[in-house]
Amino acid sequence: MSVGGATTMELYEQLTAQGDKVRSLKTAKADKADVDAAIQLLLKLKVDYKEVTGQDYKAGCPPSGTAVSNDRQSENGGEEDTVDPWNVATNSAKGVDYDKLIVRFGSSKIDQELVDRIEKVSGQKPHRFLRRGIFFSHRDMNQVLDAYEKQKSFYLYTGRGPSSQAMHVGHLIPFVFTKWLQDVFDIPLVIQLTDDEKYLWKDLSLEDCHRFAEENAKDIIACGFDVNKTFIFSDLDYMGSSPEFYRNVVKVQKHVTFNQVKGIFGFSDSDCIGKISFPAIQAAPAFSSSFPQIFKGRKDVQCLIPCAIDQDPYFRMTRDVAPRIGYPKPALLHSTFFPALQGAQTKMSASDANSSIFLTDTPKQIKNKVNKHAFSGGKDTIEEHREQGGNPDIDVAFMYLTFFMEDDEQLEKIRQDYTSGILLTGELKKMLIETLQPMITAHQENRKNVTDEMVKQFMTPRPLNFNF
Amino acid sequence: MSVGGATTMELYEQLTAQGDKVRSLKTAKADKADVDAAIQLLLKLKVDYKEVTGQDYKAGCPPSGTAVSNDRQSENGGEEDTVDPWNVATNSAKGVDYDKLIVRFGSSKIDQELVDRIEKVSGQKPHRFLRRGIFFSHRDMNQVLDAYEKQKSFYLYTGRGPSSQAMHVGHLIPFVFTKWLQDVFDIPLVIQLTDDEKYLWKDLSLEDCHRFAEENAKDIIACGFDVNKTFIFSDLDYMGSSPEFYRNVVKVQKHVTFNQVKGIFGFSDSDCIGKISFPAIQAAPAFSSSFPQIFKGRKDVQCLIPCAIDQDPYFRMTRDVAPRIGYPKPALLHSTFFPALQGAQTKMSASDANSSIFLTDTPKQIKNKVNKHAFSGGKDTIEEHREQGGNPDIDVAFMYLTFFMEDDEQLEKIRQDYTSGILLTGELKKMLIETLQPMITAHQENRKNVTDEMVKQFMTPRPLNFNF
Repeated sequence: MSVGGATTMELYEQLTAQGDKVRSLKTAKADKADVDAAIQLLLKLKVDYKEVTGQDYKAGCPPSGTAVSNDRQSENGGEEDTVDPWNVATNSAKGVDYDKLIVRFGSSKIDQELVDRIEKVSGQKPHRFLRRGIFFSHRDMNQVLDAYEKQKSFYLYTGRGPSSQAMHVGHLIPFVFTKWLQDVFDIPLVIQLTDDEKYLWKDLSLEDCHRFAEENAKDIIACGFDVNKTFIFSDLDYMGSSPEFYRNVVKVQKHVTFNQVKGIFGFSDSDCIGKISFPAIQAAPAFSSSFPQIFKGRKDVQCLIPCAIDQDPYFRMTRDVAPRIGYPKPALLHSTFFPALQGAQTKMSASDANSSIFLTDTPKQIKNKVNKHAFSGGKDTIEEHREQGGNPDIDVAFMYLTFFMEDDEQLEKIRQDYTSGILLTGELKKMLIETLQPMITAHQENRKNVTDEMVKQFMTPRPLNFNF
Repeated sequence: MSVGGATTMELYEQLTAQGDKVRSLKTAKADKADVDAAIQLLLKLKVDYKEVTGQDYKAGCPPSGTAVSNDRQSENGGEEDTVDPWNVATNSAKGVDYDKLIVRFGSSKIDQELVDRIEKVSGQKPHRFLRRGIFFSHRDMNQVLDAYEKQKSFYLYTGRGPSSQAMHVGHLIPFVFTKWLQDVFDIPLVIQLTDDEKYLWKDLSLEDCHRFAEENAKDIIACGFDVNKTFIFSDLDYMGSSPEFYRNVVKVQKHVTFNQVKGIFGFSDSDCIGKISFPAIQAAPAFSSSFPQIFKGRKDVQCLIPCAIDQDPYFRMTRDVAPRIGYPKPALLHSTFFPALQGAQTKMSASDANSSIFLTDTPKQIKNKVNKHAFSGGKDTIEEHREQGGNPDIDVAFMYLTFFMEDDEQLEKIRQDYTSGILLTGELKKMLIETLQPMITAHQENRKNVTDEMVKQFMTPRPLNFNF
């Protein structure tokens, strides 16, 4: 069933987002005209919803039996992108259509106005990930900035599923960006390593998942986080050392039904009960009372979550539950996906060594991988390329430079030269190689200096250098 | 659907039990004839199962969509007893038909031979609950005794759902019996207070559930447990203080599907995800590695669970999962239900003050409640009663005496005198009142002596006085 191409689940999500918007406009005492317009749209969506489902919209009760991704696929004959925490797929060489995703998920675009505002409030030049639309979508970021301007602090929460020892450069994106946010806003950061999730989803032992968590923690620490401002935790350890964390998990678990996780995550009756209840464990760190050692028992400190857009379903659920258990909704900053060397159609796989640049690769491996596997937007022959130019939008080497080259002017010149045919594919790849090699070598140096003792320090529940 | 009155779920459970039996016979290298007979029955059950369901029996995969109690009720027009952790109902004034329950649950009857064996192995006169069939059913008790005779120890696990501050005499049954077991076998005991479960199922706050757990712990301690041999824990606290406990919970959660808990507990899609995953939390204490402080990390110490028969579904699930995660299956001793004052048709309710004798009742309240509310098996007039006699099988005062009067001969005389009409209902009730009053007064004295400090001691994870 669809209205204007929207499935019932999408309609539901739009409605939920619109309801949130109306409430926040009212809370912010926005202009009457703005509020009225938002309400008009809300009412229209409700009529659409009733028309399609035959039922009244009810907040917190998604249309039953409609798993997000399945529904989407069957409705669109596989033409629309699939984005959920376990699957990312698109047919476009440019990658996922992120503007469509914003509409579908009911989030807001990070536009120039918001980037400017972050610059103004932080007093720092925006990170290249913001300047270039790599973090492209958000929820409630303006509210976070409003409060920050009134001296009301917040904290950062991000995470990683430690499914193997090997991390690739794409895995660093949320951490690189989170470190920047922490530096410019000077706020606490909690990093969740979901070793329990990996045990539940993968054919791995608990011991392996926990070991991967500790190994991954070293790569994260190597990004330069300050031990006095950062708490890294493994679920398997922290659940067993914090009654407050478990209490928040149970609170979320009481307020989410199987119908809801079925709608949001596409779980089925043959999934194990661990998977079904796991979303509550990813939700709980978004509430400051899960970390009494950091926030001194305060439950009202706002949380901001930088993450890849595929994690949004977890936090849509979290935001839905938050007001019902007396906590503020976490705000979000969403990033695009880091493309595989083979092209932007899929998310990278940690299990395919040639699908990305790993943090353990040698300079030689980096050179070979880029030259051999990086999908090119160039033409087949030099003559053709000189004449017609290359396509940077589908060229993986250029995409990677977008992530890692700091200089905007240099990057823009590369784009123009590649498009016009002045720059050849081999030359473009060389630039990427020369950007990646020192970056990865530096990371490896940093990681070598991370001792087991440091890992233990970061992963010990303790007060941080903040007064709450 | 039914074969010889058995529903598909019953057939599934019989098959599972029969499969277990065949395996244990083989492990024990039993007589070939016995093994063959067990296999014959197994095959016959498989044929029946296929006939009824149209599908092959698969261990661990209950017939889908058949919630135990619902299925049963619709198949039998409500004639069969309903027994699950949340509902106990029967139409018979004598109470639930326990012999039928043994067949349905696939457990074994505690017969005179087993009672005699417990006496022999423990060297003690069996507890009146064993002598009188109040603990009437078991799983693998012979295996526990075999091992015990070979100096292989075991531990006890029982529990309580702290849904209110008020406990009634019926709630003491598992604790009174467990204390006896602990005394005669000299083994560790762990007692789980499922405050998280009560939060998930009831309209209560986390704080209230946790407070009830601590209050209930006082009544449990008042039963006389030895602090050097007993660990009492609230889930809300212990989950947050034992990574090993959480690890076992996650292990169970990985090996049980929603289909399975739907089949076993009758959960539906509109149940919250906390309920759906909770059974793993009741399962985990059945594995000794959940208590490294007591068992020094040993994961092979056998567990024996004394509990009311309505808790069996949790432990059928636990026994199904145990071998798949490398742990021994817990053994079980099942008790009958303690009848409400109004009659044995229903389990007592902690929320109806007149449905039972509470541990806080005064001698006067006890007298009034028994005289006013205890359902009588006597006749309407003294003349009729003298002539025809009373019926002790449906008389609640007599049933209560079965639970609490120690002297077998005295009890038998009362039964005979009541049946013959020599003993009047008023006289029988007086005997019960005189049994209960000093018992409850003594309990209240004991409870008064239980300090907060003692509760804290019992509830602190710590080594006990045993060498494992």
